[in-house]
This record gives sequence, structure tokens and C-alpha cells, in this order.
Amino acid sequence: MTVTPSPEAFRAARAEGNELLRSSGALFESFFSLDGAAYAPGALPASVKELLGLVISVMKDCEECVYYHLERCDEERVAREQVLEALQVALVGGGSVAIPLLRRAVSYMEDLPTLARQHPWTERRG
Amino acid sequence: MTVTPSPEAFRAARAEGNELLRSSGALFESFFSLDGAAYAPGALPASVKELLGLVISVMKDCEECVYYHLERCDEERVAREQVLEALQVALVGGGSVAIPLLRRAVSYMEDLPTLARQHPWTERRG
Amino acid sequence: MTVTPSPEAFRAARAEGNELLRSSGALFESFFSLDGAAYAPGALPASVKELLGLVISVMKDCEECVYYHLERCDEERVAREQVLEALQVALVGGGSVAIPLLRRAVSYMEDLPTLARQHPWTERRG
Amino acid sequence: MTVTPSPEAFRAARAEGNELLRSSGALFESFFSLDGAAYAPGALPASVKELLGLVISVMKDCEECVYYHLERCDEERVAREQVLEALQVALVGGGSVAIPLLRRAVSYMEDLPTLARQHPWTERRG
Amino acid sequence: MTVTPSPEAFRAARAEGNELLRSSGALFESFFSLDGAAYAPGALPASVKELLGLVISVMKDCEECVYYHLERCDEERVAREQVLEALQVALVGGGSVAIPLLRRAVSYMEDLPTLARQHPWTERRG
Amino acid sequence: MTVTPSPEAFRAARAEGNELLRSSGALFESFFSLDGAAYAPGALPASVKELLGLVISVMKDCEECVYYHLERCDEERVAREQVLEALQVALVGGGSVAIPLLRRAVSYMEDLPTLARQHPWTERRG
Repeated sequence: MTVTPSPEAFRAARAEGNELLRSSGALFESFFSLDGAAYAPGALPASVKELLGLVISVMKDCEECVYYHLERCDEERVAREQVLEALQVALVGGGSVAIPLLRRAVSYMEDLPTLARQHPWTERRG
Repeated sequence: MTVTPSPEAFRAARAEGNELLRSSGALFESFFSLDGAAYAPGALPASVKELLGLVISVMKDCEECVYYHLERCDEERVAREQVLEALQVALVGGGSVAIPLLRRAVSYMEDLPTLARQHPWTERRG
Repeated sequence: MTVTPSPEAFRAARAEGNELLRSSGALFESFFSLDGAAYAPGALPASVKELLGLVISVMKDCEECVYYHLERCDEERVAREQVLEALQVALVGGGSVAIPLLRRAVSYMEDLPTLARQHPWTERRG
Repeated sequence: MTVTPSPEAFRAARAEGNELLRSSGALFESFFSLDGAAYAPGALPASVKELLGLVISVMKDCEECVYYHLERCDEERVAREQVLEALQVALVGGGSVAIPLLRRAVSYMEDLPTLARQHPWTERRG
Repeated sequence: MTVTPSPEAFRAARAEGNELLRSSGALFESFFSLDGAAYAPGALPASVKELLGLVISVMKDCEECVYYHLERCDEERVAREQVLEALQVALVGGGSVAIPLLRRAVSYMEDLPTLARQHPWTERRG
Repeated sequence: MTVTPSPEAFRAARAEGNELLRSSGALFESFFSLDGAAYAPGALPASVKELLGLVISVMKDCEECVYYHLERCDEERVAREQVLEALQVALVGGGSVAIPLLRRAVSYMEDLPTLARQHPWTERRG
């Protein structure tokens, strides 16, 4: 059991790891390109694709994938309520074993500009 | 290995099975209600939620779930290209082990009114 | 999508396949022995172990494993209501993607002597 | 790779996360209610249901779920030997990829009043 | 529960489905190319890569993937005993829930020229 | 999210945990023996079996299993390029949700004598 990381710590660790992976063989690089192509806006906007990536990540219990797609949802200005509804669909689809990762997801959202709850009466952390 | 069913055969088998399940205990019925609530339109439209359900189904290798969400996408008038992009996100997310189920998905789409390819030069099957 | 098999058809296919597997290498045979040891009554009675095997099978989406453990539950005189409660725990734990296999489970139970619903007003099938 | 948490640390983190999740939408709260209903004693006693939850958690590789159900087994006075037999069924069912989580499970049990090994010759830790 | 298909029936259904999938979007085609690149001989020979693909398929419970990689192992002249040892590693790694798919694997092998058991005293089927 | 452990820290934690598990019941010990038998050299050399174990571990998202099989590959003198090709097969097979674990794998390899990249211009760490 670990502490949910800050966005800064997550981004730094992810960037370093991806750099190492990309430099370890051309096929890794090709896979990253294909992944980028799949998430590029097309018939579906980027916001919807990021929500798809988010529920995929929950269903596969991929903690770091969840943080990444939450970041991308935040960048694409997906509303907090929309992300929460996607997580609810994932919970009903994947069952209670998804709950620990959902706890982390809502905790991580607290440090993202668009996705955090609004606290008019208090300072936001971070 | 089985043949991809027709929508009519799938719907009939699913309805019969769900009836048996619902009548087997109140908790099954409660779960179906919760499932319905998660997919009801809210901050996200029903069309996006059905695409979420579709990729969840591919990631969990749930053949009948895929057919069901394809039917729902069809009813919600999701465009064929949008469904295909969602399936592409699922393929990149879940890898080549998803290919057999994706083969069935595109085959099943052929018999759905909105999601089938258009064949201006030939008769549609079904 | 397939039809739920009859207990007779399932047992015959399973027995034939297991025979082929056991004769394909000593390690397969050793694994079957270990499996038998794990399910032997000990601190837990066989009935509880079969319920454990049943929910494991649902969580891993193993259709034939589900039929096998339903047969074993039937032999161990586990009550229908107990099996249904175990399936409900599996549904809440594994989510809606488990529903197609649960439909098959309750259908298969109809042909098992102890686990079928009682129909005082009509002939049982099978 | 992380250190197995103490029961106190786990309970505190879990309670805080669940509170955040429950307050993030009515459907999360509804799911928790359904989960509670599935585990309530009925045709099966709570002790058996907790063992079912334990093996489900191992099969889905859900570390925090394992700790939770071990705590509940402890509260329900399930015997150490019964929990170990359930874990053995899970190991044979799910294979060697379950071993790292089983290592954590038996380590976590050491700090639970009922489930710890007895050490007549030495002080218990914790 | 289905009957294990003949190699001819499997190849025909697979080819038809793949054709439909490839023609459904450029990204599907790109993924197939990447898949081909990953399995091309390099630092590892094709035979070892096909064994990797085989165990991946068993771990992900992908029935059609198993048949495909068995065909490829057969073409690469992997010995029957080598395939069986790979399946044994998969069984120990993935546990008893893999048994139904392993039953199908050894059944399918019977109709492949290199991988079938030798029956010096009797006619081979197929 | 955690830091990738050093080989020394991993080995120590694994050894301690396995000791606890083995002493918790004879069936755990039996399973370890069967696991050892499956990986013993036979028709396939140990090096190939360890690569099988590695991709199994990636597909099942088992972090500690990945470290273990990387250590064994290193001991069996599997070449870095061979391990990387096996990881590429796993990536294409399991999709982008495997990326976080692959990042850890290539990071862990840096501290293994045979599998680390060569740095002719600088001191190796560790």
C-alpha cells in the first residue's frame, strides 16, 4: 500500500521511465506512436478518448495509467462531474475490487486544477 | 470458437437469461438497477457512457457485453466511425489478445442499422 | 455465444479433455493432484471450498470451471440459496462484466438435482 | 514494491479514502450499500462470505481488498487454519502469480489478534 | 462450451475476421504491422517468440490466440515436448483456471502435423 | 506509485516472505516444488523458460514476479536484447496498460550484471 503521489512526482517518474523505455528499442517507440495516434482527436474528441482511457485503466487496475488519463482529462477541460460519472460506470462494470484504485483516483484529482473539488471556504492544498 | 450470433438470437438469449437471474434473488435485481443508474444520461450523455461500456467490455473480454453495448450505441445513434475509434483505443490499451473479440465486434456491427458499413452497390445482409 | 451445455455433455467433454491433458506430461498430473489436495476437506469443509472455487471461477470468467464447481456444490448438498448468495458476492466483487457467466450459472443449476428451483406445480426438465 | 502496512495505517488510509469516494457521488454510496448487503449474513454466515471475499481479492490481485477481508475474517473469528486453506485454494486456482500477494497476506495476518501464529516462546510483535 | 475447431475451420474464420477488421480503419492495420514486427526473428528466434505468444494467450484466456500460436509453433517446427513444457509453465503460472483452455490446446494439437502425438500403431485422424 | 527496488532489497523481502509462506502449510511448499519442476530445464532450456515466466508476469501485472524472472534471466545469461524483445512481445500482446510495469522492468535491469546497458564512458551504478 502506497501513498497517492503528487502530480509533480508522478510526472517526473513517468517521464524518466518512458525515456528509458523509448531508448530501449525501436518497437517501444513505435508502440508509443500508435498509442498517440489512437488518442488523437478524430470522429471522437480528445476529451471522450481520455475518458475511455480512464475507464480502461481502472478495469486493468493500472494505477499510473489512471493518473495519466486524469491529467489528460484535466488538460482537456473535462468537468469533474463527467470524470466521476465515468468512474461510476467503471465501478459498476468492474465491481468492488476497483474501489482501492478509485480511492486513489479521487484523491489524485484533488491536486489537478480543473478536476479538484471547489472549496470556497478554505485554501486548496497544493 | 463460436459463430457471432445474430442480434435477434443474442437479444432473445440475453433476455431469457436476465429474467432467470433477476428472479433468483433481490440482490441481482438491485445490481441491475444500479447498472441502469450508472448508464443513465447525466453530466455525460448516454452515447458517451455506452462507448465507455463498450471499451470496458473489450478489456474484460466479455463477448456478450460487447454485443449489448454495440446495440445500445446503435440505438443512441453513435456513428460507425466513433465506435471504431473507441475499439481502436481498446486495442492499443489491451493489446493483441483483444483482436478475436474485435473481429466479432465488427462482424456484429454489420447487422445493426446505424453501425453497419454502407454498401451502395450491394444488398445489405440481414 | 454458445448454448449452456447439459451436465451430461459437459461431464463427457471435460473427462475426455482431462484424460488427454493428464497423459500429456507428468507435470499436468502433478498439478491435478495438488488441486485435489487443496479442495480436500480440512479446517474448511468441502462445501465451503467448493463455494470458494465457484467464486474464483466467476472472477476469472472460466465458464467450464463454473459448471464443475456447481456440480461439486450439488454433490456436497450445498443449498441453492447458499450458491446464489455466493454468486451475489461474486457479482458485487467483479461487477457487471460477470453477468453473462452468471446467466449461464443459474441456467446450468436448473439441471442439477439439489440446486434446481423447486417447481411443485410442474415437471422439472431433465 | 512496498512494505506491508500495519493494520492501523491501512484502516486509517482506507477510511479516509472511502469517505472521499462516498462524498463524490450518490452512486458510489449506493454501491457501498449493495456491497454491504451482499456480505450480510443470510443463507451463508458472514464468516464464509468473508472467505469468499478474500479469495476474490487474491484472484483480482487487489492488495487492499485482501487486507480488508483478512480484518473481517479476524473479526468473525475465522480460524487461522481456515484462512490459510482458503489462500491455498486461491493459489492453486490463480497460480504462482498470486504468490507476492499471498506473501503480504500471511505477513499482514501476523498483526491480527485471531489470525496471527501463536508464539508461546516469544513476544508477539505489534 | 464449444467444440474445439478444426485447423481449417479456425483459419478460415480468422482470415475472414481479420480482413474485416483491417478494412475498418488504418489504425487496425498499423497494429497488425506492429504485431508482425514484434514476432519477427531477431535476437530471439521465431520459435521462441511463438512460445512467448502461446503462454501470453493462455494467461489472457484467449482461445483463438492459442490456436494461432499453436499453428505458428507447428510451422516453426517447435517440438511437441517443447510446446507441452511451455503449457506447463503457463499452468503453474496461471493456475487451475487455465485448465479448460489447456484441454483445448492439447486437443487442437492433435490435428497439427508436427505437434500431434505419434500413433505408430494406428491411423492419425485428420 | 513506488520506487523500483534495488535487487538486494527485493531479494531480501522476497526471501523473508517466501519463508513465512512455506512455513504456513504443506500445500504452499508443494506448490513451490511444482513451480520449480515447471522451470527446470527439459525439452526447453532454462533460459527460454525464464523468458516465458517473464512475459507471464507482465501479462498478469505481477511486479515482483517480473523482478524475479529478470534476475533468473540474468543468471541464465540471457542477453539484454533477448529480454527486450520478449518485453516487446508482451507489450504488443498486452497493450499500453503494461507500460508502467515495463518502465520498472527496464529500470530494474540497470542493476543486474548481464542485463544492464553498457556505459563505456561512465561508471555503472550499483
